[in-house]
Amino acid sequence: MERVDIAIIGTGPAGVSAALTAANRNKSILLVGSRDMSEKVVKAHEIRNYPGLPSVKGTEMAAAFRNQLEAMGIRITEGRVGAVYAMGDYFALQIGEEMPEAKAVILATGVVTAKPLPGEKEMLGRGVSYCATCDAPLYRGKETIVVGFSPREEAEAAFLSEVCSKVTYFPVYSEETNLPEKVAVIREKVTGIEQKDGKRIVRTEAGEYAADGVFVLREAVAPDTLVPGLETNGAHVAVDREMRTNLPGVFAAGDLTGLPYQYVKAAGEGNVAAISAAVYLDTKKKEDK
Amino acid sequence: MERVDIAIIGTGPAGVSAALTAANRNKSILLVGSRDMSEKVVKAHEIRNYPGLPSVKGTEMAAAFRNQLEAMGIRITEGRVGAVYAMGDYFALQIGEEMPEAKAVILATGVVTAKPLPGEKEMLGRGVSYCATCDAPLYRGKETIVVGFSPREEAEAAFLSEVCSKVTYFPVYSEETNLPEKVAVIREKVTGIEQKDGKRIVRTEAGEYAADGVFVLREAVAPDTLVPGLETNGAHVAVDREMRTNLPGVFAAGDLTGLPYQYVKAAGEGNVAAISAAVYLDTKKKEDK
Repeated sequence: MERVDIAIIGTGPAGVSAALTAANRNKSILLVGSRDMSEKVVKAHEIRNYPGLPSVKGTEMAAAFRNQLEAMGIRITEGRVGAVYAMGDYFALQIGEEMPEAKAVILATGVVTAKPLPGEKEMLGRGVSYCATCDAPLYRGKETIVVGFSPREEAEAAFLSEVCSKVTYFPVYSEETNLPEKVAVIREKVTGIEQKDGKRIVRTEAGEYAADGVFVLREAVAPDTLVPGLETNGAHVAVDREMRTNLPGVFAAGDLTGLPYQYVKAAGEGNVAAISAAVYLDTKKKEDK
Repeated sequence: MERVDIAIIGTGPAGVSAALTAANRNKSILLVGSRDMSEKVVKAHEIRNYPGLPSVKGTEMAAAFRNQLEAMGIRITEGRVGAVYAMGDYFALQIGEEMPEAKAVILATGVVTAKPLPGEKEMLGRGVSYCATCDAPLYRGKETIVVGFSPREEAEAAFLSEVCSKVTYFPVYSEETNLPEKVAVIREKVTGIEQKDGKRIVRTEAGEYAADGVFVLREAVAPDTLVPGLETNGAHVAVDREMRTNLPGVFAAGDLTGLPYQYVKAAGEGNVAAISAAVYLDTKKKEDK
């Protein structure tokens, strides 16, 4: 896979805006997200203050963005970025088993508003994982539990059920599940995760469930988990007015950078981040000569 | 005239966005600008990176914004704000001979990219004025010169010609002028303004022209001329990530706050400024109780 100029992570208004502007600046891009666009956008009943799209439904905004990307020849790479590694001169993105490379990165993943589950942070990498595609091989023939925060996570649980001896799924949402029969669905409020007797234990309001591995799957992961070394303020990435983070070559835009959580604010920041990334690349190129 | 919650100065993407969001937050607003919207927008041949409006002409964007304001019941007050005065608890805006009041102000006037004419700053208020409507009475029966930076300024020159004994107009643009016969149009490059023998002298590449008063008319005036005490960085207003200026209750958005000069960046900032202004008002209201 060729090394692109700018990897853009997220397909909400910030990511879409960054992609449009980066493409306009003749930068090669890798736009990682979902062809369903941002779940938050799609779920919006009506957006009344986005200039240019009067009283638009979330689904209409998502369709408008998708069509605009297509018209510009910008492809969405379906996937979830598990981690971004700074490799000195470039960045490597872990997307499932792929490791595409980029010279600069724009984080537009949205914000994680939910607090982590008790025990989740402590056990991350020790029996708790955020990426089924990445870590499924560790649990071949073993038992796993999936805590899914949106219906989109069901695909991951279904995939795990092909590999694991048993998969138990806890939906943290009200929609009906649509999962293979092999996956046991339990609707109980998850209250925490812990270690016990060499097993991972998921506690709920009603009981305890043991497994070899636990997957906690959300649309967005905490930014400092995604990019080691990233400076954050709580759930937000620290940025300046140019959308630069503390890491050279890493920019952020949208809800991830802080309040207000507004569509046009996110789109504006995506634009600024793309221009800052382009300037960063152009300056670097000159310096390298 | 009732005191509104938020005065928004400018009808480009930043001002429009601020108005939509402020109205959504149930704040009363005064939106001052032009029903032709922003001249910069209207003149744009094609805008390729505004999310939601693919490959849009400037005129189409302006029409979309205007229709959206109308649909929300937001009226544009035609006019040019000559100055914003902080009155302690509120702000007074000088618009011609009107002096509407607002509890908070959002500056979205665009940026003055042209340097002032040599002598212009020094002579401001001493025979040089930025506002024909405000200062015409000073030159009743006298001779004036108008340096107009866009065809929109012609209306001001026409108005002056009803009051002054003689008006000479220097267009700083290539379009044909459309002025009353009484106004003499001279197409020479203006190189400076000075005092001489109790008269104001406009120098051009070809000669010198004397008058009692000189009007220099641009779409936007320098922000620290508009709002005394405002902290600026060159042509830009200093703002933080919440679009707050150094003056409590005064916010800024769009090109005025700095690069990049991009439509969606401006719209995003207008949104943030409106929310910050609403928060400012709500906090103040609580404190006043």
